[in-house]
Amino acid sequence: MKKIINNPDNVVDEMLKGIIAAHPSYVKRVEGFEVLVRANAPQPKVALVSGGGSGHEPSHGGFVGKGMLDGAVAGAVFTSPTPDQVYEAIKAVDGGKGVLLVVKNYTGDVMNFEMAAEMAAEEGITVEHVVVNDDVAVEDSTWTTGRRGIAGTVLIHKIAGAKAEAGGDLQEVKRVAEKVIANVKSMGMALTTCTVPAAGKPSFVLGDDEVEIGMGIHGEPGTHRETLRSANDTVDHLLGKVLEDLSLDKDDEVAVLVNGLGGTPIMELYVANLRVAEVLAEKGIRIAKTYVGNYMTSLDMAGFSVTVLKLDAELKDLLFAPADTPALVQN
Amino acid sequence: MKKIINNPDNVVDEMLKGIIAAHPSYVKRVEGFEVLVRANAPQPKVALVSGGGSGHEPSHGGFVGKGMLDGAVAGAVFTSPTPDQVYEAIKAVDGGKGVLLVVKNYTGDVMNFEMAAEMAAEEGITVEHVVVNDDVAVEDSTWTTGRRGIAGTVLIHKIAGAKAEAGGDLQEVKRVAEKVIANVKSMGMALTTCTVPAAGKPSFVLGDDEVEIGMGIHGEPGTHRETLRSANDTVDHLLGKVLEDLSLDKDDEVAVLVNGLGGTPIMELYVANLRVAEVLAEKGIRIAKTYVGNYMTSLDMAGFSVTVLKLDAELKDLLFAPADTPALVQN
Repeated sequence: MKKIINNPDNVVDEMLKGIIAAHPSYVKRVEGFEVLVRANAPQPKVALVSGGGSGHEPSHGGFVGKGMLDGAVAGAVFTSPTPDQVYEAIKAVDGGKGVLLVVKNYTGDVMNFEMAAEMAAEEGITVEHVVVNDDVAVEDSTWTTGRRGIAGTVLIHKIAGAKAEAGGDLQEVKRVAEKVIANVKSMGMALTTCTVPAAGKPSFVLGDDEVEIGMGIHGEPGTHRETLRSANDTVDHLLGKVLEDLSLDKDDEVAVLVNGLGGTPIMELYVANLRVAEVLAEKGIRIAKTYVGNYMTSLDMAGFSVTVLKLDAELKDLLFAPADTPALVQN
Repeated sequence: MKKIINNPDNVVDEMLKGIIAAHPSYVKRVEGFEVLVRANAPQPKVALVSGGGSGHEPSHGGFVGKGMLDGAVAGAVFTSPTPDQVYEAIKAVDGGKGVLLVVKNYTGDVMNFEMAAEMAAEEGITVEHVVVNDDVAVEDSTWTTGRRGIAGTVLIHKIAGAKAEAGGDLQEVKRVAEKVIANVKSMGMALTTCTVPAAGKPSFVLGDDEVEIGMGIHGEPGTHRETLRSANDTVDHLLGKVLEDLSLDKDDEVAVLVNGLGGTPIMELYVANLRVAEVLAEKGIRIAKTYVGNYMTSLDMAGFSVTVLKLDAELKDLLFAPADTPALVQN
């Protein structure tokens, strides 16, 4: 295992400290917990909390800040955070207007975030949650009943975060988050495996010219393995599956996220993005905004995912609203 | 070779098109050339042009925009752009107040940028250039006489770009760029090799637990190979070499850039950053600003570099000035 780490047991703690050391004006630690919250509490508003296993950086701690998240809970690598960690995040960010939890659809995450919500409710904190299931690759999976939540989650952070920042109440913020979830679809592929630090060896094995299509962000199996094809063929397949699910019409507007899985050069993401743009242009679908980069990673895995979000006027306005976080600044 | 590409011969062209497709409000192509310039010409001001071989994304096209570069020239992968490409960039961005070329110290880059400057001068365009040589690892190298220019280059873009945006004249912008160059030092290391698309095979071979210290961003040899050590030991070595060269005193202020080489998970960069922050804190050196991420990459190489820039009041003000580019937005 070749990693820039000290001890696999400390990697999440040290990472969180490293994020705070880099961005002290944005984030601080909830002492004693694997939780990052905004360094300066915003004006009272609905608070957003997300999180999950670590290994997906900059998700989710990198998106704590103005116009996105108020708190992020970091489990061990690829392991759901415990309910008490989520509960601490909820308590830390609640400003009296309620808390929305944005949960990626993994059985452990959903269970633990829901349990934390119940704990908080007993303390009189109003908590709602939404479950993100944007991955169209497979129904059910290693750790999931139903579809998995992957890179599209970042667009929920962005848009629901903007709604909360603009003063939306808890039900409005939840409604917007659910609208994004209903309209965002993703699919990914892996060129290489990934290595969980505590395991010390690759999670799976791919042949020299073999890739996995529909791979999950924890190395869960996708739809099939195949020989590496061209960027264009690969995008055509992933994007085709995404578009099958979105029923877009000519002149519809979308947002695009071409997401790197951690080990993919930015050069290659832009090559993929060109094909995404070409295919959408051929269909007369307009791209309002594109994000290209490492937003929802899978440790050192090489590969990428394509996310398309169908916009309406409300979602577009919120997508374009300002954000100021360590990993996403938008004017 | 496992890459998300179509044809190695088209990778730079497709990448540039993919950047424009993603960020049309920021950048456009100089038709017929591998040159990106600002989509909307700024008010007349000193223009900044940088570039070099491709494979270092988001450098340099990702830094074209307000407060940083006006133009970026993309050579073939790891290959200096030809003088005519640089010349076209100069012509495209000159607004009558002169052009500053920011050149990383590689023999081919220096020669070709200087030749382009002469071509432009013959057309009556005032051109100056600075040569970045922040890599303290080795004197002279495979393609370099003197020290190599690496990740610190991004801080020249940021600070000299801010000076130009603020209306500084060509000599002032050049003076600021040279002040940054005199005060910025970097050193990197590689966990893995990288693969140039046209070559189709790894540029070099490292053993399973072997790393190269002082590795250049094109795979040029560093100071030595060794067995992978802990993140802390590795940072202590790289940062130690950087600090030897900077002669910092207690209470001096610095900017830090912990730069990923393309295949390094963000998690690991933050683990490294924690140690950078600890070492500087122990010495009483204050960190004014930290950047962590993929800024100057080396294709799919895993590894990182540490850059420290000694600040004074002028450099600090310019570092904190707003920037709005595809790869760096700062309020």
